[in-house]
Amino acid sequence: MSDRREFRDLAPPERAREVVEDLAIDPDPERVPLSDARGRVLAERVDATLDVPGFDRASMDGYAVRAADTVGASEVDPVELSVAGAVHAGEEPDVTVREGVAAEISTGAVMPPGADAVVIVERTDETEAGVAVRTAVTPGENVLVAGADIAAGARALGPGTELTAREIGLLSALGVDSVPVRGRPRVGIISTGDELVRPGEPVDSDAGEIYDVNSYTVAAGVEAAGGEPVVYPHAGDDFEEMERVLHEAADDCDLVLSSGSTSASAVDVIYRVIEERGDLRLHGVAIKPGKPMLVGTIGESAYVGLPGYPVSALTIFRTFVAPRLRSAAGLAEPRTATVTGEMAVRERSQDGRHRLVPVGLVETATGETLVYPVDKGSGATTSLVEADGTVTVDADTDYLAVGEHVEVRLFSPSVRPPTLLGVGEADPRLSELLDRLERPRYLPVGTREATRRLEAGIPDVAVVSGPDAVPEAATVLGSWEREWGLIVDPQAAVSGLDDLVDSDVGFVNREQGSGLRASFDAALDALAADRGEEPATIRHAVDGYELTTKGHESPARRVRSGAADAGLGLASTAVDLDLGFVPLGTETVTVLAHPDRTEKPSVERLRELLETDTE
Amino acid sequence: MSDRREFRDLAPPERAREVVEDLAIDPDPERVPLSDARGRVLAERVDATLDVPGFDRASMDGYAVRAADTVGASEVDPVELSVAGAVHAGEEPDVTVREGVAAEISTGAVMPPGADAVVIVERTDETEAGVAVRTAVTPGENVLVAGADIAAGARALGPGTELTAREIGLLSALGVDSVPVRGRPRVGIISTGDELVRPGEPVDSDAGEIYDVNSYTVAAGVEAAGGEPVVYPHAGDDFEEMERVLHEAADDCDLVLSSGSTSASAVDVIYRVIEERGDLRLHGVAIKPGKPMLVGTIGESAYVGLPGYPVSALTIFRTFVAPRLRSAAGLAEPRTATVTGEMAVRERSQDGRHRLVPVGLVETATGETLVYPVDKGSGATTSLVEADGTVTVDADTDYLAVGEHVEVRLFSPSVRPPTLLGVGEADPRLSELLDRLERPRYLPVGTREATRRLEAGIPDVAVVSGPDAVPEAATVLGSWEREWGLIVDPQAAVSGLDDLVDSDVGFVNREQGSGLRASFDAALDALAADRGEEPATIRHAVDGYELTTKGHESPARRVRSGAADAGLGLASTAVDLDLGFVPLGTETVTVLAHPDRTEKPSVERLRELLETDTE
Repeated sequence: MSDRREFRDLAPPERAREVVEDLAIDPDPERVPLSDARGRVLAERVDATLDVPGFDRASMDGYAVRAADTVGASEVDPVELSVAGAVHAGEEPDVTVREGVAAEISTGAVMPPGADAVVIVERTDETEAGVAVRTAVTPGENVLVAGADIAAGARALGPGTELTAREIGLLSALGVDSVPVRGRPRVGIISTGDELVRPGEPVDSDAGEIYDVNSYTVAAGVEAAGGEPVVYPHAGDDFEEMERVLHEAADDCDLVLSSGSTSASAVDVIYRVIEERGDLRLHGVAIKPGKPMLVGTIGESAYVGLPGYPVSALTIFRTFVAPRLRSAAGLAEPRTATVTGEMAVRERSQDGRHRLVPVGLVETATGETLVYPVDKGSGATTSLVEADGTVTVDADTDYLAVGEHVEVRLFSPSVRPPTLLGVGEADPRLSELLDRLERPRYLPVGTREATRRLEAGIPDVAVVSGPDAVPEAATVLGSWEREWGLIVDPQAAVSGLDDLVDSDVGFVNREQGSGLRASFDAALDALAADRGEEPATIRHAVDGYELTTKGHESPARRVRSGAADAGLGLASTAVDLDLGFVPLGTETVTVLAHPDRTEKPSVERLRELLETDTE
Repeated sequence: MSDRREFRDLAPPERAREVVEDLAIDPDPERVPLSDARGRVLAERVDATLDVPGFDRASMDGYAVRAADTVGASEVDPVELSVAGAVHAGEEPDVTVREGVAAEISTGAVMPPGADAVVIVERTDETEAGVAVRTAVTPGENVLVAGADIAAGARALGPGTELTAREIGLLSALGVDSVPVRGRPRVGIISTGDELVRPGEPVDSDAGEIYDVNSYTVAAGVEAAGGEPVVYPHAGDDFEEMERVLHEAADDCDLVLSSGSTSASAVDVIYRVIEERGDLRLHGVAIKPGKPMLVGTIGESAYVGLPGYPVSALTIFRTFVAPRLRSAAGLAEPRTATVTGEMAVRERSQDGRHRLVPVGLVETATGETLVYPVDKGSGATTSLVEADGTVTVDADTDYLAVGEHVEVRLFSPSVRPPTLLGVGEADPRLSELLDRLERPRYLPVGTREATRRLEAGIPDVAVVSGPDAVPEAATVLGSWEREWGLIVDPQAAVSGLDDLVDSDVGFVNREQGSGLRASFDAALDALAADRGEEPATIRHAVDGYELTTKGHESPARRVRSGAADAGLGLASTAVDLDLGFVPLGTETVTVLAHPDRTEKPSVERLRELLETDTE
């Protein structure tokens, strides 16, 4: 297969970084109105072209005076001055302050001619003849002289300054209403692959269609790195159409990112376009996830080919492309946010590649951080949100041992570990309870796997159901009953378990290890015993017994789509999806806590919710 | 004066925080397209309504097989299978894998019926009869089963989740193209004051006009805190117009922020509107800067009145209002970024108020952080950008001592101290040199003050000019000459210093402590000596000698505006502003470094630039 050639000669990560850094993607500077300038970066120095303030300005309410007239004034021995008039902010003074005279003045007003200081109103009294001043002031007191804030000709802000509220304030004070800023690199995003469907449109699973993930994650990443994403309609694997889109994007953008169709023909098109109009500078980087990476140019545009799997694509983007976009936009690299924790499980390295292992974090009751790898297999998108950061494992490290201290590089400085890590059954009532906690993470791994993980000491809580035994060492936080049975087409003639076994009913099961599956198997076993038959015989008679699905709604959705007659599920799901229901029993859903974590605030909160929120 | 009443009873900061937290400003949730969702916060839980993937999916390129057929296969003893066809991504399989049969399969393709594992292409060889498999696989190997990523009914993302590239990826995978998010609180911003002019429009300094700063800083702050700013045209102090704008904003917004006109009448309007239509809950908070603060409601809208001075307004906004906006928008409080440093100077507290002292940071050569207060007097906007954060000083602390360790709360986690702190003369050539350093901070305080600060050990470098002596302890990094003289209207009949003394020429001087002023005074003294007159007599004869300005371009700009005939300035300024020039001499601009800071990279870089960049 032709795409094997691209991985022959993997570049070390440092080399890939250099090649991407050398790409010419710096856009031209542009001018934006001040109201759109937040977050942008100055392209040029801005000098003050006027004095701020432009006049000697009273900085307090009070009386403008000649300081010399107040010498000796005190609380016990005030000096009396006549009052010639008043000056308010925003008006030209029409009074002159001569010896023995004061003028009432408001904060922000122009100091009238002759006055050189302000006595604050709190240290004066109105008198019949004018005003009694109860304190002496020095020249300049309570006056901001012209240019004292910033003076004409001064360097106000340097090139490269990122504009926040504070800089925007200074620019306003200078009367600047538009500013020259670094351009945003324009980044064309092309996803390739016949199987991709845009979110919002119907997806045909039988034909292997899936939703396009990379266009949206990469666009969001481009935006966060200061670029301007342009998502091109994806062109399937059609040779000519793909070539056309690549050319169009290259003509219009500073950088083109394609996220790889895994098909050989798409790779061929990209190679051909680069050969014809550009320059291939790197193919393949020795990093996992994400080794397939192309770097080069197409026409005047830079080009980076990202891998197809979302986690790999985002890892390569974040590691190599985002820093280059930030430098093109003039943005500073964010502070690297790291957390040190202990490995909760052993993590083995399969090959000699530099690895960025996605990991999740969980805090123990004593505030220590446990680190566990998140690996849901190539192509899983949930790894995106189930991890908090990555641990870097060098090419020559064989494994990370349990208890080993590792440094986790968080995906961003704003990432915080979840307050609660739960694993186990998916359940509608549980989802509602979780909604009432702050930042929980819940992995619906099923009862059997949840039990295993709780025993391994990773999660805070495990949610189990079905007839399987509850682990002895766990603490029960609470439980509830749920009704389960067959979710059926309202028209279908299914009234009980017997129909599954005896009639030609197309059934959809749940996977082993889930509570419902265990309950269902127990019911079939009981039926077999009733009939005096072997359990295996009864199971075999159910058409679709081996057709398992992972989600608690998955069988019901197959029934609704007409792909099956009956599915294993919950009574509540039948109601939600407007389907018929044949009750077969109830099972208990139990929330178990790791015995050392019962004092964690989130675990206590969950127990409280379970105690008060009875249905 | 009527606005005195509002400060009678200052609330402690904690009380102010509570009152603002109680304001009802939470907007309704809204639905946004996925492409606009970055940075928004989910208003509701999103559950998976389909299985991802929706089919059993090959996760590698290779051959779909029955695992049972590969038992015993190895490099030395491959198993040969016939090949029934091929399945590509995005198509429905048209082959069935029976015993002894394989199908070529691409990554992402639907597993054909009968197959339960994939052998990767690297472990196979094409043969005449089909394919030789050189490894055994287990059922499920290199296959991502339907729903393994996320299954229908699972809780995908909880309410309150902030959407980054990763969450957007998961939502795309679920086919979601729009999401319910927390609304952005709509915040009306009203600046009051007859003296305010919008940036971009001409400002009349003689009439005390200044540019409006608060509308823009507060709008940028609102945006950064997740709100949607609406800047209303400012209404001056016109009673009825202000009342109309307040009502309009209150009808249209979740929160109205006015930033205070200092005039009593504006405060009266606000009090009246609140009395008629709302509820005043707090007036005045015991914090500096910023005590004048009003909190209440107007109609259905919440209301906060901010002080008029930009630094005070932004401090009050940041301390009390921004956290409430973030909670309304569902955004997490940013991690507080703090830096510990040593006070470089003594800072005295004037009164018993809780203070947030704006401070600048500078790093010594050994990496320690020095902290110095930034206080340019009430109303200065440059304090906004010359500070890096604040030090909190309790009401009962009298002073911070030199060397005392203080904790600086940075304005944001992205604030980094400048690489170089310079003080001294403003100079065009210096501005260009500074443009070539990364993040320098330069305070144009003039020669005399620069010398004082360098001796106090605060800045890294001081830039001095004129005949005054260079401090002995400083290290000279480099120097250049600049030509100075009189900047004149090209039509004016001024040809030398004599004309200033003998004719009726309106002159504009520079302030004491600047290098140019010292050079000018020395030249006048020389003229006096020449003529055998007292220096004071000669100075007195110059019309405008006492009219000083702070900026090196300020006198020239007064000449250009027609307000004066001649101004003290640099030859280069005359060229820049297209004015006439009468040379009077040259002076040396010297860049001095703090002797302990010469090893700082930024100081070394500046020395390098001075050595290579000779004019």
